[in-house]
Amino acid sequence: MSSDVSCLSRNLLLVATFLYSALLAATVNAEDGYDLWLRYQPLEVEARDNYRPQLRQLVIPGREDSRTLQAIGDELLRGVGGLIGRAPEMASRIRGDGFVLVATPGSSADVRAAQLPMDALGEEGYLIRAISLRGHTGTLVTANSERGLLYGSFHLLRLLQTRDALVGLDISSSPRIGLRLLNHWDNLDRSVERGYAGQSIWDWWNLPDVLDPRYTDYARANAAIGINGTVLNNVNASADSLTPRYLDKAAALAEVFRPYGIRMYLSARFSAPVEIGGLETADPQSPAVQRWWQHKADEIYQRIPDFGGFLVKANSEGQPGPQDYGRSHAEGANLLARALAPHGGVVMWRAFVYQQDNPEDRAKQAYSDFVPLDGQFDDNVIVQVKNGPIDFQPREPFHPMFGAMPKTPLMMEFQITKEYLGFASHLAYLGPMYEEVLRADTFAEGPGSTVTKVIDGSLHGQRLTGIAGVANIGRDRDWSGSTFNQANWYVFGRMAWNPDLAAATVARDWLKITFSDNPELLAGALDIMLASRQAVVDYMTPLGLAHLMATGHHYGPGPWVSDLARPEWNPAYYHRADRNGIGFDRTAEGSNAVAQYATPVVEKFASRSRVGEDLLLWFHHLPWDHRMNSGRDLWEELVYRYDRGLAEVQEMRTQWQALAPLVDRERFDKTARLLAVQEREAKWWRDASIAYFQSVSARPLPDGVAPPARDLAYYRALEFPWTPGH
Amino acid sequence: MSSDVSCLSRNLLLVATFLYSALLAATVNAEDGYDLWLRYQPLEVEARDNYRPQLRQLVIPGREDSRTLQAIGDELLRGVGGLIGRAPEMASRIRGDGFVLVATPGSSADVRAAQLPMDALGEEGYLIRAISLRGHTGTLVTANSERGLLYGSFHLLRLLQTRDALVGLDISSSPRIGLRLLNHWDNLDRSVERGYAGQSIWDWWNLPDVLDPRYTDYARANAAIGINGTVLNNVNASADSLTPRYLDKAAALAEVFRPYGIRMYLSARFSAPVEIGGLETADPQSPAVQRWWQHKADEIYQRIPDFGGFLVKANSEGQPGPQDYGRSHAEGANLLARALAPHGGVVMWRAFVYQQDNPEDRAKQAYSDFVPLDGQFDDNVIVQVKNGPIDFQPREPFHPMFGAMPKTPLMMEFQITKEYLGFASHLAYLGPMYEEVLRADTFAEGPGSTVTKVIDGSLHGQRLTGIAGVANIGRDRDWSGSTFNQANWYVFGRMAWNPDLAAATVARDWLKITFSDNPELLAGALDIMLASRQAVVDYMTPLGLAHLMATGHHYGPGPWVSDLARPEWNPAYYHRADRNGIGFDRTAEGSNAVAQYATPVVEKFASRSRVGEDLLLWFHHLPWDHRMNSGRDLWEELVYRYDRGLAEVQEMRTQWQALAPLVDRERFDKTARLLAVQEREAKWWRDASIAYFQSVSARPLPDGVAPPARDLAYYRALEFPWTPGH
Repeated sequence: MSSDVSCLSRNLLLVATFLYSALLAATVNAEDGYDLWLRYQPLEVEARDNYRPQLRQLVIPGREDSRTLQAIGDELLRGVGGLIGRAPEMASRIRGDGFVLVATPGSSADVRAAQLPMDALGEEGYLIRAISLRGHTGTLVTANSERGLLYGSFHLLRLLQTRDALVGLDISSSPRIGLRLLNHWDNLDRSVERGYAGQSIWDWWNLPDVLDPRYTDYARANAAIGINGTVLNNVNASADSLTPRYLDKAAALAEVFRPYGIRMYLSARFSAPVEIGGLETADPQSPAVQRWWQHKADEIYQRIPDFGGFLVKANSEGQPGPQDYGRSHAEGANLLARALAPHGGVVMWRAFVYQQDNPEDRAKQAYSDFVPLDGQFDDNVIVQVKNGPIDFQPREPFHPMFGAMPKTPLMMEFQITKEYLGFASHLAYLGPMYEEVLRADTFAEGPGSTVTKVIDGSLHGQRLTGIAGVANIGRDRDWSGSTFNQANWYVFGRMAWNPDLAAATVARDWLKITFSDNPELLAGALDIMLASRQAVVDYMTPLGLAHLMATGHHYGPGPWVSDLARPEWNPAYYHRADRNGIGFDRTAEGSNAVAQYATPVVEKFASRSRVGEDLLLWFHHLPWDHRMNSGRDLWEELVYRYDRGLAEVQEMRTQWQALAPLVDRERFDKTARLLAVQEREAKWWRDASIAYFQSVSARPLPDGVAPPARDLAYYRALEFPWTPGH
Repeated sequence: MSSDVSCLSRNLLLVATFLYSALLAATVNAEDGYDLWLRYQPLEVEARDNYRPQLRQLVIPGREDSRTLQAIGDELLRGVGGLIGRAPEMASRIRGDGFVLVATPGSSADVRAAQLPMDALGEEGYLIRAISLRGHTGTLVTANSERGLLYGSFHLLRLLQTRDALVGLDISSSPRIGLRLLNHWDNLDRSVERGYAGQSIWDWWNLPDVLDPRYTDYARANAAIGINGTVLNNVNASADSLTPRYLDKAAALAEVFRPYGIRMYLSARFSAPVEIGGLETADPQSPAVQRWWQHKADEIYQRIPDFGGFLVKANSEGQPGPQDYGRSHAEGANLLARALAPHGGVVMWRAFVYQQDNPEDRAKQAYSDFVPLDGQFDDNVIVQVKNGPIDFQPREPFHPMFGAMPKTPLMMEFQITKEYLGFASHLAYLGPMYEEVLRADTFAEGPGSTVTKVIDGSLHGQRLTGIAGVANIGRDRDWSGSTFNQANWYVFGRMAWNPDLAAATVARDWLKITFSDNPELLAGALDIMLASRQAVVDYMTPLGLAHLMATGHHYGPGPWVSDLARPEWNPAYYHRADRNGIGFDRTAEGSNAVAQYATPVVEKFASRSRVGEDLLLWFHHLPWDHRMNSGRDLWEELVYRYDRGLAEVQEMRTQWQALAPLVDRERFDKTARLLAVQEREAKWWRDASIAYFQSVSARPLPDGVAPPARDLAYYRALEFPWTPGH
């Protein structure tokens, strides 16, 4: 802007300020959640004033020749411009105080000369430092790669969003885990399995011709939290995804994602050689099958030179796999791995298996199938293990495979979408759940052998490391079906980068970025978030119960279901409640699933007194009159927990109402309406569950406890056609 | 704003203007099409300056007590504020020049005193007048009802959007047709039959709790173009839509729509009494069935007091209907009509029927079924007839039922979604197609008996009148899958209000509102729009051919298909091409479908020379060497038309490219990419069709005509799984 404008007329000023207000109002109105954590609304005046002298110039050497550096420049201009109301000047060299230099040692002699500790940063890490260069003070973002610069630049923007001082900066950060991926369970018809935020964001039909700007925003949002890969399609995969027509579509997306450091992966259907290859078999031992996969890999890498690899669900819930031909999971995984190896790709082979004809406790089957294969997987195979041994329940113990396969890289599979935690409508912040699992100690190599150390590779010296989150992303304007669901995507990314981060810390960052830094808002909303997951546990599956959801769609309670063909599909299989007691005996007297854990975890889980009440009924079948820590007996405690869960949701609603003056109308209302749904459904869960368990236990309700609103027959008769995500 | 601000410092001004520019840039960037024709971006400076003195105050008496008046006030504040950069002051009385008074004679003594010609306006019409009241000059929007005020207010906003002068205004307008409806073919699982713009906008799962702001914007957009009703669910209906759970959801939407004058209708499945009522039959003669529908109507009106009525697809393409019980369409329609009559509801009974076991020319069947029933329908039944006798083809003659049922109200069913015109990706402005049908002369009561006069009720003195458009609306951010598809929704609404409007006039309005009033842009884009539908006809189904699309999904060419179970499912049924000639003989020598039209239309259509080449092969089977007006023989002309269609698309692309400097980047690119798709697919249509017809005609290509790029076998082998809308 020219600096020699003289004092213009009052009218012009009025017009300008008026228009500014009008436009600002329009912008503030549009709090539709689309921007996620790339929300660059103006900060408070004081914060803006503080930051401005420090963000005058932006210097990014080599920007002309790199799409990643261009993306960095665009993001910093947009982000700083939005947040402090004045974009830095893009400069070719440092010209004064308040510069931001974004450069690698390779792209800047100044950085080389500074002799910074770059080695520890690795390929993706970065350094952000207050620095003096050429007689001027400024901020340096440096890294060994452009991707590192990208992550560092997003970190710098986050510092502004969380109102952190830029003075005296000395931040060094690098990711602890190599593969930090989203898994999309998206189908080619744009439906999303367990998706509750609308249709798939991948518009397969119009790809590769039409590139929705949303694809770029998806890449930006993921890069901002350090996610570096995405599996586009459902693990229940169609072989069509591997046909040339669909590979062209995937390649167009890969092109959009590439500057943001996001590699593309595909779920591969094991029987694709038969379905789209015209072969008679998909047997790993067949040379024709091996050749087919090699050619398929060549075909893919021709289109997507940095293709990441395959995710495979095999011999699980009806999917084809190597066992169809009498081969092991290792043989199946190695088949694909050998096709990808020449190109640098990996196979992520899922351990989520349980079998129709296997009478063994479902919680034990994955371990039984996989642990004997330790050492048989090729170097570029990583086994992807769900956080718990069953299936993304509100609470499970950590999966016994973690720590049990020292010769095999294991990656974590978390679910971000809330298949079993109230879909998109319930507020449940999953940070504490991730934290609980990551910090669990497997004792595989003695104390301190946390799940984190298994998946970051440090426990057993693994080179290949990974973590995946099943996405909660859809075409809804706010991406995730509610404002607070965005926090689950966010915390997954942040913890994937640094599994030691506390859930509360990340929640606080997210709240500042998403709403404001008003202390009252932060305190109130943080309370809600941190209490929310335990509330779901309490009103759905307290005390270590699991899988009590209605059949198939998993919407609402169905503890009474006991007539499905496969035993492990029935909630009754999991709770085992009868006149005498409740719970699944997984001790040596029962299924002995505890034996899959290392000493002393096995002893702890096997002990009624030491296991902890949160997992009590996961491991133990106990009489209704079992005495609990509270002094209540088990029956009373169960009822108490259901009541507590409902009460917690009521408290969350009250707390949210109190924040009304501090939140824009659009997001306030949306959350308030969803909390009303959640309260109604929590009450339904509580009432239906108590009605059912009382019909089994035949015990009276404790004094003062409200009876269920309806009788059991009512709850059993409810039907929900057209349930989403199913 | 205070007017005593003194000349502030240069810095403040700079900040303000800078922020204004920054925010404006942000706003302009976001040309994502969401705003449709409610796009209130600032007009050019000169236009703003002209309008401001005329839009100083807004007076809406009674606004506190009416949701419709509140909606009007909000819209005018927002619209005027956005367009001219200064919202009028909301005032309780006229206080100076430049007022806008929005009032009925009932709400304003001034309006009563003005003695305006209100009678002709009817229930929904309005008057917009320059007027002097209480010594001040201003603009009056008046009407007999609040709905009329709503339409008048949107018209006033449109005047600004099209940069029309407000001086000397004297506009009187009332709708020619009573029911102006959208039909959504939306399913309860959120899929949309023949929908190409994403999932259904109705989030059934989260209704009634969550009311997406989009529902309000939907109502605003429709009210702005005069649409006054909507059928929420697919004509291939699930009976679940009539269950209490789904009625509660519909009622929540009705509540949102009500202030905008939009009544809700539902598609009713004829067999609902069996499926959700537990009855053994749905026979119209069964008293139990009659009672069931009466109770169902009561149940609906309890929730939705202004419920509009039912749309029914019966005995058509597998849907249940009265003929299942040996009853006529009239008996079926009257069953539902009698249940609705006490509440003031109507039945819209579709005439789109053709039957599996009926060897008669499909084009004749609806007429044969329905015309004999003329006079047998209850007063609150209106028969809904597609524009042509087959099914939404790029070009059809008008449906012979129009004019042929003098005792029965007939309503028009247009398709806005482009099932047979290239889905969402091809640019095809449908205004000229609607115009062609509406202006067609049925001669039912002598010359001038246009289709318009049938559906506006004037030809046969019908009280109940209607027009429906099958919506092209989905969850895509731009609602319709492309910018130009929005114009089809827009022109449908405008023509439903006034069927005499010219397609070109409406296109021009739409372009001004959507882009700008730059003359070069208007001229270029108008050319594209007006040529576009004929281009589709030429490259898909020239010379009166029809239904040559691939089976089921209707994507791409399939003229070779001849092996489907039902004859009328096969393209070969429609083109009847062989070694000797091509076309469907519907003269007296053939199916005699021509006889369903009135004299002299029948003679015109029966005449090879008078029918016109656009419909030639619809009515005539002709030898390949038939001489055409151009001097070419029929074979050469067919090839020429395919070439012409492709060339037109190429020209459209060139024209659009020339507009690049005049259109924002986001919308320019999106349209440019879609035009590239359209060109590729037009070439595919042209090549595949010529390859096929040449294989039949065995005639050489005319000199200079490019041969198809591939052989016929290639085109026949193409497969398109996962096609949307199917």
